[in-house]
Amino acid sequence: MARIAYINGRYLPLSMAAVPIEDRAFLFADGVYEVCEVREGALIDEERHLKRLARSLRELRIAAPLGDGAIGTILREVVRRNRVRDGMVYLQITRGVAKRNHAFPAAGTAPTVVATAYASDPAAIDRKAAAGISVMTVPETRWARVDIKTVSLLPNVLARQAALEAGKSDAWFVNAAGEVTEAAASNAWIVTGGAEVVTAPADDGVLRGVTRMVLIDHLAANGLRLVERRFSLDEALGAKEAFMTSATSAVLPVVNIDGRPIGDGKPGPVSRQLRTLLRSSPARSAPYAGALRDTRSDVIP
Amino acid sequence: MARIAYINGRYLPLSMAAVPIEDRAFLFADGVYEVCEVREGALIDEERHLKRLARSLRELRIAAPLGDGAIGTILREVVRRNRVRDGMVYLQITRGVAKRNHAFPAAGTAPTVVATAYASDPAAIDRKAAAGISVMTVPETRWARVDIKTVSLLPNVLARQAALEAGKSDAWFVNAAGEVTEAAASNAWIVTGGAEVVTAPADDGVLRGVTRMVLIDHLAANGLRLVERRFSLDEALGAKEAFMTSATSAVLPVVNIDGRPIGDGKPGPVSRQLRTLLRSSPARSAPYAGALRDTRSDVIP
Repeated sequence: MARIAYINGRYLPLSMAAVPIEDRAFLFADGVYEVCEVREGALIDEERHLKRLARSLRELRIAAPLGDGAIGTILREVVRRNRVRDGMVYLQITRGVAKRNHAFPAAGTAPTVVATAYASDPAAIDRKAAAGISVMTVPETRWARVDIKTVSLLPNVLARQAALEAGKSDAWFVNAAGEVTEAAASNAWIVTGGAEVVTAPADDGVLRGVTRMVLIDHLAANGLRLVERRFSLDEALGAKEAFMTSATSAVLPVVNIDGRPIGDGKPGPVSRQLRTLLRSSPARSAPYAGALRDTRSDVIP
Repeated sequence: MARIAYINGRYLPLSMAAVPIEDRAFLFADGVYEVCEVREGALIDEERHLKRLARSLRELRIAAPLGDGAIGTILREVVRRNRVRDGMVYLQITRGVAKRNHAFPAAGTAPTVVATAYASDPAAIDRKAAAGISVMTVPETRWARVDIKTVSLLPNVLARQAALEAGKSDAWFVNAAGEVTEAAASNAWIVTGGAEVVTAPADDGVLRGVTRMVLIDHLAANGLRLVERRFSLDEALGAKEAFMTSATSAVLPVVNIDGRPIGDGKPGPVSRQLRTLLRSSPARSAPYAGALRDTRSDVIP
């Protein structure tokens, strides 16, 4: 089945979905995005994703081109047209198209809105989580505003690629002070010997991960002690457990960092408990029946 | 006249030149670019631009999709088809199109190659240079690899925009140590009381500006003393002169930083001399007669 994309009001075969070469995301990385998990056909944590999207747009002073309701409908429609039951939906909004010039284009320039959906294999992610993953550390090289979810992702690309070539699953950024900031596309966590669940504060050079925020709610409700503070690579290497959180993988135990086993080198009880909690929590929005009853993937002007 | 763009082997009206939404520059800022001055129809410093382009591609491990000769022909053809006599030609090469995934796409994925040309008004730039410009400083927020000319330019966009909204012409980045790194899209220089012409070393968190390199050659040939070292904002505020260099503006005197006049608040003799030297040097490649004799702007497969 041909994949379908939404672009500026139309649903098109992905092969036909294109943006002008003067789109500001293409020229300047001048755009923001969200990746939302799809589980059993429903969007997970939609409200939090839309709230974060609104913040990203506000921080970059891109006018929101659509209301939350319209964006939600687009996301659901893209999921439906791609027949994604489990996977993710991707949304990107850019500052629009204008003759190349660093300065913002004229007021009223329409933002570009793009969405696509991808199926994933939940069983494969479960197997990965059951085994735990190995990560390598890389120097923190990103710009200062990684708290905004922009498409300025080249250092993340290079970090992930370096990890894969080293036979690892992912990379963790470590700053000049020796502190772990986050993973290439996830938040990083440890569980200390004192049974504290530790992750860096969200205002401290890390992204405000939606799954991170959801997990924080779960911690409180399950009697686990959250500490939001920076932690060093040394502390991570000596931790009882380590794990990462993202919309695409929920909780992913990390069993090895830079070739050194964490704890006993297997996913620990807290990580496993938290993964189970997140994965078994009810989908936080109702499955989508479809705004349109047809299942054609044709162009809708 | 409709503007023309080159894209992956074809010359198209700009309005038809588009890239798939899964292009890696659009999704990840995973691409590099060059801006080359066009003067009297000729490319300025072509060889140095192509050499730097090759380095950028190498640093990001994007396979060069075309040889220097082919790229040179494309640049000339884009200039010719847009009838640009004075202005600039823009070239961008990305890691190509692939399903969204931080890791590099499969080997053999074709890079995307895009080029456009823009006319400028040399007299207007001359007037701007004659008056000198005012800049404001902004904190250095960029990623660690600004020595590579990537499209990861969002901090540059935000810096330039902040400057314009403050009534200034441009922004200078100042790092945590109080040192000027470079301008939003130019290299930054000062002339000290000791008649030293100072700019930050090119391996030190600044771009290897082509005009910067050309100017360095001119300094030696004109008995001016170059010192490549970092300089602080305080030193710049107390300097005799300040200026910026870029392919689009050559040498642009800076007469005011953060509201404080530099020297006597007018373009100084060294800045003016260097601008004259650069602007009056012979175009460093012969004007292009055209690979094709027609002047149609049609599609060429």
